[in-house]
Amino acid sequence: MARHFGAVPGVGEGATFVNRQELRDAGVHLPTQAGISGSAVEGADSIVLSGGYEDDHDEGVVIVYTGEGGRDPVTGRQVKHQQLVRGNLALAVSHRDGLPVRVARKLKRGGYEYAGLYRVDDHWRELGRSGFRIWRFRLVKLESAQPGQGPERKPTLIQRIVRDTAAARAVKAMYDHRCQVCGERLETAAGAYAEAAHIRPLGAPHHGPDTADNLLCLCPNHHVLFDFGAFGIGDDLQLLGLPGHLQVHPQHHLNPAHLEYHRSRYLHWK
Amino acid sequence: MARHFGAVPGVGEGATFVNRQELRDAGVHLPTQAGISGSAVEGADSIVLSGGYEDDHDEGVVIVYTGEGGRDPVTGRQVKHQQLVRGNLALAVSHRDGLPVRVARKLKRGGYEYAGLYRVDDHWRELGRSGFRIWRFRLVKLESAQPGQGPERKPTLIQRIVRDTAAARAVKAMYDHRCQVCGERLETAAGAYAEAAHIRPLGAPHHGPDTADNLLCLCPNHHVLFDFGAFGIGDDLQLLGLPGHLQVHPQHHLNPAHLEYHRSRYLHWK
Repeated sequence: MARHFGAVPGVGEGATFVNRQELRDAGVHLPTQAGISGSAVEGADSIVLSGGYEDDHDEGVVIVYTGEGGRDPVTGRQVKHQQLVRGNLALAVSHRDGLPVRVARKLKRGGYEYAGLYRVDDHWRELGRSGFRIWRFRLVKLESAQPGQGPERKPTLIQRIVRDTAAARAVKAMYDHRCQVCGERLETAAGAYAEAAHIRPLGAPHHGPDTADNLLCLCPNHHVLFDFGAFGIGDDLQLLGLPGHLQVHPQHHLNPAHLEYHRSRYLHWK
Repeated sequence: MARHFGAVPGVGEGATFVNRQELRDAGVHLPTQAGISGSAVEGADSIVLSGGYEDDHDEGVVIVYTGEGGRDPVTGRQVKHQQLVRGNLALAVSHRDGLPVRVARKLKRGGYEYAGLYRVDDHWRELGRSGFRIWRFRLVKLESAQPGQGPERKPTLIQRIVRDTAAARAVKAMYDHRCQVCGERLETAAGAYAEAAHIRPLGAPHHGPDTADNLLCLCPNHHVLFDFGAFGIGDDLQLLGLPGHLQVHPQHHLNPAHLEYHRSRYLHWK
């Protein structure tokens, strides 16, 4: 079964669980031991704040979470450097791709609480209090729906921050994270970085779909230029406003209506 | 006096004003006639929603605002195409630079209300109901401080969305929006686009300052690569992880302590 990112239907913020097994059964956090659920390919889908790391900070809206590894299993003390592998790399991938991470928090009175969805906002390494290198991840809470503020609130803010849907991930994988305009592939320690750009924008009043036929794999520079109408794409995939033509994978079928929508509203002719 | 962007001290959301002169006296919106306050160089600092345009949508959190120009001064009807000039261009510049825009709304019962800070999220042209071309701007409300959610809430979310402070604008102007790494300058109809990158990050736990000695002018691609530690900068301004050296203006004095902070925490050595 594919790893599930985002909220679990039926589990609201503040829901409590007696133990790790209940967190697992509810689908909030599947591993019963590890603090980070995820893989280096897909990213991390959930973490548990257990209060066990000497360097964690949990201020509710902003969490600084210490990565895993290098602890003595008996004393729980940091005895080795942490590496950017396994769960730590999964969280770095979630940062790269803007994935939502479910956060559960161990309660002082016992049990666990679902704290909501966060995005990984930053990651870095430093020397912990023990003198060993640790990886740290800054997580910022995503806007939750708030009664009385209108249905637009949640999707509008979240969709810009959490960029990576299944369709976006599929399109980026199809191009191996290479820009369809310039062929650039941005290499980071968390893997290659690319952006999925909507041709007809999401949200009111455009209501473009979040589907592969409305998505391009672009480097950040060409994403900005596309969104600001510095170039467009003809039905023959010729670039308009830039030399050359769009690189398109044989399995990637762009919808000409979306290309025309972008040209007519965004493209600035010289 | 420099144009003031952002909140006006002492004017809270929901504050009401009898007329346009009162809005002006309070510093919310200076022009007494024009709906858009701003310039093509600095961007737009405020708008008034007067309900006068046939194509405006105002849903509170998301506003689709129609640009200015092309209306018959007597009938108020659209009789010509709108151009991306003056106030319209100012709003496009606010989009490019992520500037906060004060929004005031004309009330049906008379008078005006300060609706808060918005960012321009998108701009495009289309044919209005009149058959003439209009420019449209999508504005999304910025998070306002909400009691009980902690002091981190406001700065954290706003600082990522509203990128452009006075220091950031000064650094981008110093380099004429050229990337200090590759020399790239992204040209759009709203002017050149660049990003101001903090060397030592803002916010907890890094607490880097928002000052020129901690800022670089980068293209979006090199901004991503820098934030993910794919390259760093030596004290001699040699790039580490990329060939070449950083272009630095003689008046731009980078703080070596910030460069070292970035190298020690973010730079991934091969």
